[in-house]
Amino acid sequence: MSNNFDGFFYPKSIAIIGASSKEKTLGWELMKNLLNFGYNGKIFPVNPKADSIHNVKAYSSLTYIEEKVDLVIIMVSKKYVLDSIEDCKRRNVKNIIVITAGFKEVGDEGVEMEKLLMEKIRNNNMRMVGPNCMGIINTKTNVMLNGTFIQGEPNPGGIGFISQSGALGAAVLKILKLRDIGFAQFLSIGNKADVNENDLLEYWRDNEDVKVITLYLESFGEARKFMEIAKTITRNKPVIAIKAARTAAGMKAASSHTGALASADTIVDAIFEQSGVIRVTTVDELFDLAKSFDRTILPSGKRVGILTNAGGPAILTVDEAQNSGLDIPELSEATQNKLKEICVPEAAFHNPVDDLPPATAEVYGQATEILLEDENIDAGIIILGPPLMHDTFEIGKAICDEAMKSGKCAAIVLMSQDDIIPRLAEAVPLHPPIFNNCEAAAKAIGQMYKYKLFKEKPEGKYKIINGDKKIVNEIIKKYENKETYLDFDDVVKILKAYNLPIVESFFAKNVQESVDIADKIGYPIVIKVAGKKLVHKSDVGGVVVDIKNLEELIQAENKVIAGLKEKGIDNQLEGFTLQPFIKGGTETILGVMKDSKAGHIIAFGMGGIMVEVMKDVKFKLLPINDFEAEELIKSVNAYKILKGVRGNPPVDIEFVKDNILRLSQLVSDFPEIVELDLNPFVFSHLNDRCKILDARIKIKF
Amino acid sequence: MSNNFDGFFYPKSIAIIGASSKEKTLGWELMKNLLNFGYNGKIFPVNPKADSIHNVKAYSSLTYIEEKVDLVIIMVSKKYVLDSIEDCKRRNVKNIIVITAGFKEVGDEGVEMEKLLMEKIRNNNMRMVGPNCMGIINTKTNVMLNGTFIQGEPNPGGIGFISQSGALGAAVLKILKLRDIGFAQFLSIGNKADVNENDLLEYWRDNEDVKVITLYLESFGEARKFMEIAKTITRNKPVIAIKAARTAAGMKAASSHTGALASADTIVDAIFEQSGVIRVTTVDELFDLAKSFDRTILPSGKRVGILTNAGGPAILTVDEAQNSGLDIPELSEATQNKLKEICVPEAAFHNPVDDLPPATAEVYGQATEILLEDENIDAGIIILGPPLMHDTFEIGKAICDEAMKSGKCAAIVLMSQDDIIPRLAEAVPLHPPIFNNCEAAAKAIGQMYKYKLFKEKPEGKYKIINGDKKIVNEIIKKYENKETYLDFDDVVKILKAYNLPIVESFFAKNVQESVDIADKIGYPIVIKVAGKKLVHKSDVGGVVVDIKNLEELIQAENKVIAGLKEKGIDNQLEGFTLQPFIKGGTETILGVMKDSKAGHIIAFGMGGIMVEVMKDVKFKLLPINDFEAEELIKSVNAYKILKGVRGNPPVDIEFVKDNILRLSQLVSDFPEIVELDLNPFVFSHLNDRCKILDARIKIKF
Repeated sequence: MSNNFDGFFYPKSIAIIGASSKEKTLGWELMKNLLNFGYNGKIFPVNPKADSIHNVKAYSSLTYIEEKVDLVIIMVSKKYVLDSIEDCKRRNVKNIIVITAGFKEVGDEGVEMEKLLMEKIRNNNMRMVGPNCMGIINTKTNVMLNGTFIQGEPNPGGIGFISQSGALGAAVLKILKLRDIGFAQFLSIGNKADVNENDLLEYWRDNEDVKVITLYLESFGEARKFMEIAKTITRNKPVIAIKAARTAAGMKAASSHTGALASADTIVDAIFEQSGVIRVTTVDELFDLAKSFDRTILPSGKRVGILTNAGGPAILTVDEAQNSGLDIPELSEATQNKLKEICVPEAAFHNPVDDLPPATAEVYGQATEILLEDENIDAGIIILGPPLMHDTFEIGKAICDEAMKSGKCAAIVLMSQDDIIPRLAEAVPLHPPIFNNCEAAAKAIGQMYKYKLFKEKPEGKYKIINGDKKIVNEIIKKYENKETYLDFDDVVKILKAYNLPIVESFFAKNVQESVDIADKIGYPIVIKVAGKKLVHKSDVGGVVVDIKNLEELIQAENKVIAGLKEKGIDNQLEGFTLQPFIKGGTETILGVMKDSKAGHIIAFGMGGIMVEVMKDVKFKLLPINDFEAEELIKSVNAYKILKGVRGNPPVDIEFVKDNILRLSQLVSDFPEIVELDLNPFVFSHLNDRCKILDARIKIKF
Repeated sequence: MSNNFDGFFYPKSIAIIGASSKEKTLGWELMKNLLNFGYNGKIFPVNPKADSIHNVKAYSSLTYIEEKVDLVIIMVSKKYVLDSIEDCKRRNVKNIIVITAGFKEVGDEGVEMEKLLMEKIRNNNMRMVGPNCMGIINTKTNVMLNGTFIQGEPNPGGIGFISQSGALGAAVLKILKLRDIGFAQFLSIGNKADVNENDLLEYWRDNEDVKVITLYLESFGEARKFMEIAKTITRNKPVIAIKAARTAAGMKAASSHTGALASADTIVDAIFEQSGVIRVTTVDELFDLAKSFDRTILPSGKRVGILTNAGGPAILTVDEAQNSGLDIPELSEATQNKLKEICVPEAAFHNPVDDLPPATAEVYGQATEILLEDENIDAGIIILGPPLMHDTFEIGKAICDEAMKSGKCAAIVLMSQDDIIPRLAEAVPLHPPIFNNCEAAAKAIGQMYKYKLFKEKPEGKYKIINGDKKIVNEIIKKYENKETYLDFDDVVKILKAYNLPIVESFFAKNVQESVDIADKIGYPIVIKVAGKKLVHKSDVGGVVVDIKNLEELIQAENKVIAGLKEKGIDNQLEGFTLQPFIKGGTETILGVMKDSKAGHIIAFGMGGIMVEVMKDVKFKLLPINDFEAEELIKSVNAYKILKGVRGNPPVDIEFVKDNILRLSQLVSDFPEIVELDLNPFVFSHLNDRCKILDARIKIKF
């Protein structure tokens, strides 16, 4: 099975099975697009009823074509698709796009049909895009392939776009020129029966024509593989994605705290964030950012210079720039003096520079040059308000030229002048990204700056930590082939085997035993109800802390028992867990859950009874490296507390990190662990006083 | 001074001083706009050098016009503006728009000039819009006034738009038709020397032509007045605003916790939220929402039905709808059956309904009707993907008709079909709002639903609480004419006078005195360093809690003293404050600050050392009524803890509310209080154990 898609994107010849001479049919539209866009290879329409289609000689069957066929596009009705594949087999065609719909997406019968189709594809070592897709595009000058039946001419550029929705692809194609978006390659992947986004990502990783990868996904083919592949791309080539169907049910365990906190969509967030994929939520955002990556360079820093001929739009730009993490610095005196020489005296020479409506194309061009030359400026946004006196088009050209010459990151805003954008883009083929509103430009540069920071991050190293596997192995064996929570004693042993600092615990069957044990460990102590069914101990009033002496102990346990009786659940009580009381420190939660698609996921954040209230928890996929562990810690608010707040001494963050890596190792060694909560995990400034006060582990074979 | 702007928006005659016969000048453009749009009154161009302008008889001076002039638009060069006002005085004209620029916005000389201008306006009981503005519009059929020099024809509708930026107004005017935005009235308010947004708000409150009010503001004329006026409008008429210049420095005290937490922009948020003004941040959002209010009715609930001919856009719509607080409910069986009768069998009959690309105008129209008839549906979003086989325009017409007939809230999305929007809007004058992307439609309906909830909220009642004003008066007198923090003893007395439960405190000069006092109040106790300069006590290790006996007390105080010595600030120590130790409870902050523009603002949220870390604090302007107090409490995360979390008993929220109202009364009685922090204010389930553990008050006369 080949993962080289040159045969799809750079075919020397294409056959269209189902090309049609009947106007307005899909087979007619696709042929028209192929011809109009100026495809550079050979076109073989296949239709048993036509001699020629759009004046191109037609063949009654694929098998009659004498020349080599690189790519076959199938758009016959559903019942003939399998026969068409047979024809491909006969002609040894390996690259097939099935546009025909009516497969998995229509339910039972279609599912069966798609299975048969895939069998044929696999048995013949073919690769298939679709079924139920809209086709393929490559705008490269020596290819000029528009193998879609969509209205609207592809606009060339460096963006690769994978769309799981044909209609969405079509919607974008229709506005490429209007929004200054340029496509290098486009593929509508339809039902993803064979080729999915992961294949394309791998292919585009090393494809020089595609400079920015964009995706519209409704589901992951294989989530974990997506992350692994994306990780190998994002530092070199930006990947931007919409993952729609955000609230669709994810497969996940939800009885643990960690599981309850991880919605299907937070897992998607974690996958994207960890692999460096930039997630956006709207189509506009997707392509505003993609065209910026494509048409200008990364900003070298976060300092943005703004040039405008109108105050209001500049102020909105400043607002959005600052909101997106950018700065609006003061300009150098030299810059201001140079601007004074060319602008009218009432102009504003501070950042944002306002050269006012009288500014001509010449003035605007010069001002652009001067602004971008300033060494305090890493990127420029040049705004052109609705024109009053001058020709926006001419001014736009002057700005484009100077912005491109500057060698800096730049964007142009033609406020509300949608009509000028395609004209300007065509007149100046090499131009910065052009926007019709200023907020979008500022937001895009802010995201580019964040991407720059991402590229500069250390990659991190995976550490191997030696836990006592033998002990854990023995314990887990006891539960073989079960799906169950482990006994607390076993949990303690497992954690100890990996040096995870679980607090000393003692089990007491009743009040009398409690008193004896407390004498041994010494006061103050904590008591917790014990019982397999008593999972959320605090909720039933089953936890009492800081018990200072015998009397308090007896009183506390009797009160707890009375409370359970009142709730009618005293029969669930099996005894008490006693622990030394650890005073102070910050309660965190450290947990792991296993998602059916994304695999093991680790969670860290504010713990104890604040878990649900604050929802200050972030996630990463396991295994996790040292830098990712540090990022995880720093990504939650709890970090501010751990660092030491208002006179409290700081926690040793390296020690927190070490515990995260230990936990990662434990789960990596024993993937049978499907849920694990360390909550609360109390950290204080002395490492030997950091303790896990409660823990649960669930395994599933 | 009249606050009736009929003379501006419904003038029977207009004189334009500075109308010009020279092509492309502003005075030429404005005359052209007036004539082209078909103004229904009399037009008197005033220009000493022209006999006629655009074929309209011109006058060499205003004074030569024999008929009554309702409105004068001045657009002569700056040096003639004052003379023109004199002419207005002679002709007893009271309504003036000064378009001419070069006043306050250009600095010193202009500031002076604007002052002179305003003197003349005030002395003659005139009202003036501008200077430095772009003019006025009223699209009412019997008025048809376009008194601007901006390109682009006004599109009629029910939106009133006030813009502090002329350029932004111009940008919006240019795209009205393209984005299906309809203006009733528009005013560019420029420098706001006389007429500002508050005047217009008051005027539009009772103006029937303006159904939705939109504002673009860079600054408030008078912030508190804005809130008071807006409050009287928003329950009847939606008001939507952009407040730009978000990061501009606000005048505010920042030494208190409350002050440090309240940025200028959070105060703006509080003003808008409390007055029911919907705040948005981009121009697109502003008008997407405004046109929705204008063109369709409020949704009766949050259940949205979606009809589409393409999957992807529908999924994006579901995502954004749910993200905006809407539900996508199941349709009734009857609805599904009716749909099955008209759609192709492969269509999807669940919500979102997908009638697939074969759907004709007839099918789309019927499906729209059936969907909106379903009693499970409160609002509909009808999406039309890029067309494949049918004419979008015809389908669009069918949808518009059925959507309007339904009497329900509805929006139409013509994905990427910008070109069809103006055609469709013109063909069906009464149509639901039309969008070119689906996310915007879902977001707008979500905001409309929130507005519906706002309208249904109780208005709240102001309670009068009797504090012991005499005591507070006496204390504050001591500090007369100062700006200072009060002594802690005085703070305690003031709080007690208003029944705010400050914990008992005792001052001890040294360790020996501490021991004596501790004996009296009984252990456990808390000690805090005391000293005017020792403001952030925790930060210097100056707070020790839960001291259980004599030895612990002596040890603690000595340790604190040693700590201060190490920091070289032991000379700031004046003694110790001793308090009984209150165990448990939830730490909140309750504070007040006085903003120079918005006045007194109250803050509530998570307190203690978590204040800065969690930033879980919200604000409201004072005075606050009972319902607003409840809203304030419920708006912060701390509320979830106060309600009782994981077995902790709930706090009496009425008691929390009562304390907020007491504090509001205190500040209302003594406006000299400019800062007040009650932090931590500990709430537990027993009201008599709720205590303020620390407090500061600053006054300024």
